[in-house]
Amino acid sequence: MTTRFARRMEALKASEIREILKVTQRPEVISFAGGLPAPELFPVRRLAAATQEVFEEEGTRALQYSTTEGHPPLRRKIAERMNASWGAQVTPEQVLVTSGSQQGLDLTGKLFLDEGDVVLCESPTYLGALSAWNVMRPRWVEVATDDDGMDPAALESKLRAHPNAKAIYVIPTFQNPSGRTWSLERRRRFMEVVERHDVWVVEDNPYGELRLEGESVPSLKSFDTKGRVVALGTFSKVFCPGLRIAWVAADLSVIEKLVILKQGADLQTATLSQLQVNRYLEENDLDADIAKIIPVYRERRDAMLSALEQEMPPGVRWTRPQGGLFLWMTLPANLNARTLLDECVRQNVAFVPGGAFFPNGGNENTLRLNYSNMPIERIREGVKRLAASVAKEMERAGVLEEVPATP
Amino acid sequence: MTTRFARRMEALKASEIREILKVTQRPEVISFAGGLPAPELFPVRRLAAATQEVFEEEGTRALQYSTTEGHPPLRRKIAERMNASWGAQVTPEQVLVTSGSQQGLDLTGKLFLDEGDVVLCESPTYLGALSAWNVMRPRWVEVATDDDGMDPAALESKLRAHPNAKAIYVIPTFQNPSGRTWSLERRRRFMEVVERHDVWVVEDNPYGELRLEGESVPSLKSFDTKGRVVALGTFSKVFCPGLRIAWVAADLSVIEKLVILKQGADLQTATLSQLQVNRYLEENDLDADIAKIIPVYRERRDAMLSALEQEMPPGVRWTRPQGGLFLWMTLPANLNARTLLDECVRQNVAFVPGGAFFPNGGNENTLRLNYSNMPIERIREGVKRLAASVAKEMERAGVLEEVPATP
Repeated sequence: MTTRFARRMEALKASEIREILKVTQRPEVISFAGGLPAPELFPVRRLAAATQEVFEEEGTRALQYSTTEGHPPLRRKIAERMNASWGAQVTPEQVLVTSGSQQGLDLTGKLFLDEGDVVLCESPTYLGALSAWNVMRPRWVEVATDDDGMDPAALESKLRAHPNAKAIYVIPTFQNPSGRTWSLERRRRFMEVVERHDVWVVEDNPYGELRLEGESVPSLKSFDTKGRVVALGTFSKVFCPGLRIAWVAADLSVIEKLVILKQGADLQTATLSQLQVNRYLEENDLDADIAKIIPVYRERRDAMLSALEQEMPPGVRWTRPQGGLFLWMTLPANLNARTLLDECVRQNVAFVPGGAFFPNGGNENTLRLNYSNMPIERIREGVKRLAASVAKEMERAGVLEEVPATP
Repeated sequence: MTTRFARRMEALKASEIREILKVTQRPEVISFAGGLPAPELFPVRRLAAATQEVFEEEGTRALQYSTTEGHPPLRRKIAERMNASWGAQVTPEQVLVTSGSQQGLDLTGKLFLDEGDVVLCESPTYLGALSAWNVMRPRWVEVATDDDGMDPAALESKLRAHPNAKAIYVIPTFQNPSGRTWSLERRRRFMEVVERHDVWVVEDNPYGELRLEGESVPSLKSFDTKGRVVALGTFSKVFCPGLRIAWVAADLSVIEKLVILKQGADLQTATLSQLQVNRYLEENDLDADIAKIIPVYRERRDAMLSALEQEMPPGVRWTRPQGGLFLWMTLPANLNARTLLDECVRQNVAFVPGGAFFPNGGNENTLRLNYSNMPIERIREGVKRLAASVAKEMERAGVLEEVPATP
């Protein structure tokens, strides 16, 4: 008998994204792999100034322990932002500050999931939600999802087939990995179905404020009449990820339980980081910062879309995101994105193979492309190399249907 | 049917310490309740200077995502410190940076524990370990512990009674809550017993560098020949807790798994906080800082011990810690520390009732006193009020044995 790990470890593997990111840290690699915001847009100097004031005016407090729930003025500001931009109605007491949105996933997984519980999700869904919730060993059931969002009829039928389903995990706006956004109509119908059943909803919305075009759509949380929607938000994509300041907003009865779980998980999020963000928000206009990020990302998205249009061989499809950081590509059915990645890495281009975003496997002919982290010239050059690799793989796999089977 | 939480939530309650801390945040309260370091000793100005340099020299990097394992130069420094002060032999690759030591507990709980697994611990043990590991629903078995540490014969017999015991959680140096330190001989014998069986050891050592008197004793990790000891360390008590920088040091095979779990839990610890601590350590002598903390805590411990000697009614016992932040008090058997706390809070004095530190209950006549967070005059005044409340409770409970039973 050897010293043993818990059974859950048999199924948990290192995140593909993180492992690829390591390979792609070399400066010569054109990486479409990560979900990294553009670092040149971080407000370094203004955050440095706010930080210095925190040290001068409340230095000892910033370095001491603080409450698990989070810094009260920051919770107030988060509630205000949510009420303004998510169309939600949230009080400061309904906000729990977390160490990244990833921690919101860890805590909600612990709160809702017993081993074997059924969880519904979009297909594909966010890899990080799988790694957080798989610790609790649930059973993932994918619900058919198209360009307008999750299919309400498919959801209804899955909820009937699994009447004990515990939670539904969704990213309705600029989804990771697909870049899709649910229509208003789909959101309404989703909530109608949910309220007829008895199930938690975790609405993950890290990208919602990064709308590059079109009208904004209210969050699921804004339709929540029964306190069933647990909303996850973060400053990582609209401010910076290196401070790890994010939040959960939910019914008080849920927040109280999440606080207990957060005490066990890490006691509290760093006091200094919370005071820094709070001070920054007091002295700066985050919406104005976001308004500067958007044209840059829009330009990058457009550069990627037009390069794809020009370079990609026929038979390859991709989404056209209205915001966020990602688009999603579907290769001909018999191509494998993991094989393609090997070839691309030799060409110093990286992306994330899409198979990892499907909890029950398959869909190996898909991939996720990030457009926020590279300047336009590198995006063009990267897409060129990617397209050449795709063409090569298509040829190798005999996909080029124009070539007659026999001479 | 109402929307349901996971079964584990039935047993998880809000941490008594955290709830009491909230009540005791009023400035008039003399609090012996928390485990807070003395904030007046935080090196605010020097950390502010180091932070400013981080912003100037590597600002964008500090605000971006970084690897789950932690900032490499910080991992190197942590390994060096462990090898110097714990008597351990650890490489930088064997160090995972965590968001507080509490996260080390969360991650090791996930790694080792299936529902129903037996876990051994000291009696009493750290409340925060209970809240972290109880998420996995283990069965706690307390092992007899005296002033020299865990009893090796008792440990052997518990391991025979529970041959599938999965892990042993211990704080061998300046234990929280008891203030006890295991002798060198006990450490050796503990590791002999452990290596005859097949069980993980989690050695939590947040206070080891805060030795107020006597000779330092090597960590359990330094006796670990089979890679079974997972060591938890932190900067919270020797530097400041508000940055939440701590670490796990363990065999590579364990670290690899913990990295996967940390990806799921919070992706990474804040990049900026790691760069701040790293820069601070480069430019300052942390050992010299610690050398300034020690006489202050020694004076406070001594003030508490002599006030207890003077004020406490006969029949009350307490430990005499050689270091750390806590001492442990045992009241006459029929007194209840929770009742005593109610009375003390009316007198604006707070502590943590000891019952919460016993996973299987009982021992309601014990309590934990912190001496690091209050100046000497307030310690004396607080002990005076505490002693008066104890005397009152003893009278009420009829403990004063000098009073004849019949006149």
